[in-house]
Amino acid sequence: MGVQHLQAVPHLTTALTGPLLEIEERLLERQTPIEQWFHERWLASPAPFYTSVDLRNAGFKLAPVDTNLFPAGFNNLNPAFHPLCTQALQIAVERLCPTACRILLVPENHSRNTYYWENIGALVELLERAGYQARVGSLLPEPAGRQSFSLQNGRVIAVEPIERVGDSVALPGYKPCFVLLNNDLSSGAPPLLAGITQPVVPAPALGWWNRLKSDHFTQYRRLALEFAGFIDIDPWLIDPIFRRCGSVDFQKREGEDCLADSVDAVLEGIRLKYREYDIAQEPFVIVKADTGTYGMGIMTVRDASEVRHLNRKQRNKMAVIKEGQTVERVLIQEGVYTFETLGDEQAVAEPVVYMIDRFVVGGFYRIHTARGADENLNAPGMQFRPLAFADSCSSPDKKREPDASPNRFYAYGVIGRLAALAAARELSAAADAP
Amino acid sequence: MGVQHLQAVPHLTTALTGPLLEIEERLLERQTPIEQWFHERWLASPAPFYTSVDLRNAGFKLAPVDTNLFPAGFNNLNPAFHPLCTQALQIAVERLCPTACRILLVPENHSRNTYYWENIGALVELLERAGYQARVGSLLPEPAGRQSFSLQNGRVIAVEPIERVGDSVALPGYKPCFVLLNNDLSSGAPPLLAGITQPVVPAPALGWWNRLKSDHFTQYRRLALEFAGFIDIDPWLIDPIFRRCGSVDFQKREGEDCLADSVDAVLEGIRLKYREYDIAQEPFVIVKADTGTYGMGIMTVRDASEVRHLNRKQRNKMAVIKEGQTVERVLIQEGVYTFETLGDEQAVAEPVVYMIDRFVVGGFYRIHTARGADENLNAPGMQFRPLAFADSCSSPDKKREPDASPNRFYAYGVIGRLAALAAARELSAAADAP
Repeated sequence: MGVQHLQAVPHLTTALTGPLLEIEERLLERQTPIEQWFHERWLASPAPFYTSVDLRNAGFKLAPVDTNLFPAGFNNLNPAFHPLCTQALQIAVERLCPTACRILLVPENHSRNTYYWENIGALVELLERAGYQARVGSLLPEPAGRQSFSLQNGRVIAVEPIERVGDSVALPGYKPCFVLLNNDLSSGAPPLLAGITQPVVPAPALGWWNRLKSDHFTQYRRLALEFAGFIDIDPWLIDPIFRRCGSVDFQKREGEDCLADSVDAVLEGIRLKYREYDIAQEPFVIVKADTGTYGMGIMTVRDASEVRHLNRKQRNKMAVIKEGQTVERVLIQEGVYTFETLGDEQAVAEPVVYMIDRFVVGGFYRIHTARGADENLNAPGMQFRPLAFADSCSSPDKKREPDASPNRFYAYGVIGRLAALAAARELSAAADAP
Repeated sequence: MGVQHLQAVPHLTTALTGPLLEIEERLLERQTPIEQWFHERWLASPAPFYTSVDLRNAGFKLAPVDTNLFPAGFNNLNPAFHPLCTQALQIAVERLCPTACRILLVPENHSRNTYYWENIGALVELLERAGYQARVGSLLPEPAGRQSFSLQNGRVIAVEPIERVGDSVALPGYKPCFVLLNNDLSSGAPPLLAGITQPVVPAPALGWWNRLKSDHFTQYRRLALEFAGFIDIDPWLIDPIFRRCGSVDFQKREGEDCLADSVDAVLEGIRLKYREYDIAQEPFVIVKADTGTYGMGIMTVRDASEVRHLNRKQRNKMAVIKEGQTVERVLIQEGVYTFETLGDEQAVAEPVVYMIDRFVVGGFYRIHTARGADENLNAPGMQFRPLAFADSCSSPDKKREPDASPNRFYAYGVIGRLAALAAARELSAAADAP
C-alpha cells in the first residue's frame, strides 16, 4: 500500500470547492467531546457490521440522504486505508466469533455488474487479511447459484449455492461461524437462512423487504436534534426535512394527494430555512421509494403539481424498484444541493462514507459529469467515477482552515457515523419487535 | 493527514537493500492462518496497552532485540497512520473504561529531551482524537513536577504534580479514570500510585525496577518455537540466542566467569548456525543490563576475553544505567547484524515497530550514519534520524516480491507482535505472582 498506491489514485489532492461550513468549525472545536458522545452511544446501540452513507454537501448544509446496511463499493476505497478496514473487521468479527472463524459472505443475486464483484472480491481479501477465511455462498440454487468471477488482480473467486443442513448453513466442507449479508434482501427474508443457529449479520429484518427509509430518517432526526443541541447548531444544518406517504399506487394514480401535500409541506419547510439563511437557490425535493435501493424509483420535484401530472413513462419508472418490487410507500425528502465539484471538469461529486463496526474506514466521491447539483447521483444505469478520499476521516487538523480537506473529511465521518448510529437504533428496534 | 503529510516525510519510498528472506515468503503464504493464530493467543493473553519493539533484520534473520512497554517515539510515526492509532486507542481504552474517560499520562522524570516531550505531546493529541481527555501528571512533587513544554506545532502542554487523595490520584479539578504510564519506573514502583483504585497501565510490576529482559526473551523463545513450528521454519531465524548472569559487579570485577562462559556459549551457538546457513559474517554478542532501558550499559563483544579485560572506563560504562541504578544482572544476547541501509548514505537502519493493544500502528527506522551493522543503535547520546515507515504493517501484497516494502513491513509487524505477545505473557505472569 502506501505511497505507490496513493499516487495511482488520480487527482487525489484536487481541492473541492464549497463555502466554509459553520458546522465544520463546530466539529473541529469540539472533537474530543464529540468522540466521547459517540463512545457513550455506541455502548447503548452496538454499531451495524458495516454501513455506507451517501452524503450531500451543500456548503451551508451537510446531510445524509441514504444509509446502506449492505454496502457495496469496498473496491472504491483508498488502498492506503485498508489497514483501518482490517483492524475494524477484527473488532467487528471478534464480537460475533471470539475464536478463529470462517465467514460465509452472501452477495446479491443475479448481479452482472463487474464493479459489484470487485466489491465482493475486496471484502473477501480484507477479511482474509484480518485473519478470517471467507467464502462466497449464493442464496440461489444450482445452476444460477454457482459461478465464478475473475478480479482485476487476476484472482478467481468462486460462488457456490448455500446448503441448508438442519439448523445451519454450509458450503461443501465449509461450515461458517457466521453469515455476512451483502445482499439487501429486496425480495424478502430468505427461507434458507430462517431459524439457523449461526448469526446472520446484518439482521435480515433490516433487508429492504422490511426496512423503511423513513424509519431510518425518523431515528436520524432524533439523533440529529440531540447532536445539534450538543454542538450548538441548528439541527436542520445536518438533517433533511422529510414526509412519508403509506399507500401510493403510481399505476393506479392512488395516493397523489398525500404525495402532493407532502411535497408542498417539505418545499415550504425548505423555503423557510432558505429565507432564514439567505440562500438564493430554488428548493427541491426528492421523491423516492421508502424501501429499496439502487436509486430506482427516484425523481427530483420542484413543485407539487409535478407529482399530479406524471406521464405513463414517469409512473412506470416510479412504480417498480429492484427485483420487480412494487412501490407503495414513498419518502418525500428535502433535496440537498451538492456544491462539491471536481477541478475544471465541473463534475458533480457526492461523498460516500464507509464504516465497519463503529469506525470510519474511508470513503469515496461519486463523480458524475452528466448530472446537475440537484439530482440523485445513485440512479439506475448511472456510470459514476469513484474518487477515493485522500485522507482518512479521523484526522482533523485544527491548524488548518475548517474546510481544509482533512477537516472536511472529519465532518463527513461525523455525519456518516450519526447515520450509522441511527441505523444501529433501527437494529435495536427491530430486535425488540415481536 | 494523507498525501500532503506523506510527501513531507523524506525518502519515503527509499528501497532498503537486503537479501530475500525465506521467512517473508512463509509469512506471505500463510497470512490468514497467522492472523488466526494471533487472534487465539490474544484472547488468552490480553495485549499490553502499548508496545514498541526494536528489530534487527540481517536478511537471513529477523529478530526482536528489545521490547519496550513504556514506548516513547510516537512522534516519529507516519501521520498517515494516525487513524490506525486512534482506532486502536479506542479499543484499548474501552477495555479499561467503557464510558467517557479522563486519562492521566505519566511521563519520564527529569527528561530534558525535546523529542521525548514531542512524544508525550503526540500521545496527548492521539488520545484527544480518540475522544479522551488527557492530562500530564508528574510523579515528582513541586517544583520539579511542574513544568510546561511547547510542541513544534505551537501547542503548550502543562505537566502538574500528581496529588494523592485517599485511595486515588488526581490533578487539581481532574480525576482520571486510569493512569497511563510512559515512565518505565527504573527506580522502583512509585509509592504515589501504590494501592490506588484507578487502573495503572502498563502494570508497575513491569517497570524496569522489576522487569528482566531475560524473562521477556524466555517468553519470546517459547512463542518463537511455537510460531516457527506453525509456519515451518527454524526458530533461530526469528529468535536471538541468549544467556543470563545473575550476580555481576563490574566495579568489583565479580561474575566475570559467568559473563565469559555465557559469551562463549552464545558465540558457539551462533557459529553453529552460521555454519549451517553458510553465513560468512563474524559472530558477535551484545552484553547488556538485564533491566533498564535507553541503551545504557551495552557493549558489543566478539570474544569472551573482552569481558575479562575491561578497563576502568568500560567498567564504569557498564556498571550504571538510567537513574543511577547499579547493574547486577546481565543479558548476553546474540548480536544480529542489521543489513538494512539507506540509499547512498550507507547509513545503518534499525526498524522499530509500534503497537497499541494488539494492533500494529506503524513504526520507523532508526537511522545512524556513524555506526556499524554490529552495533546497538539505541545507545546513550545516540542521535538517530527517524524515518517513518512508508507502509502500514498490515497490508502485504502477495503479487509483489516477498521483500517488497509492504511485505517486509508485514514481516516486521508479525515479529513485532510476537514480541508484544511475549510481553503480554510477562504481564499475565506478573499478575499471577504473589
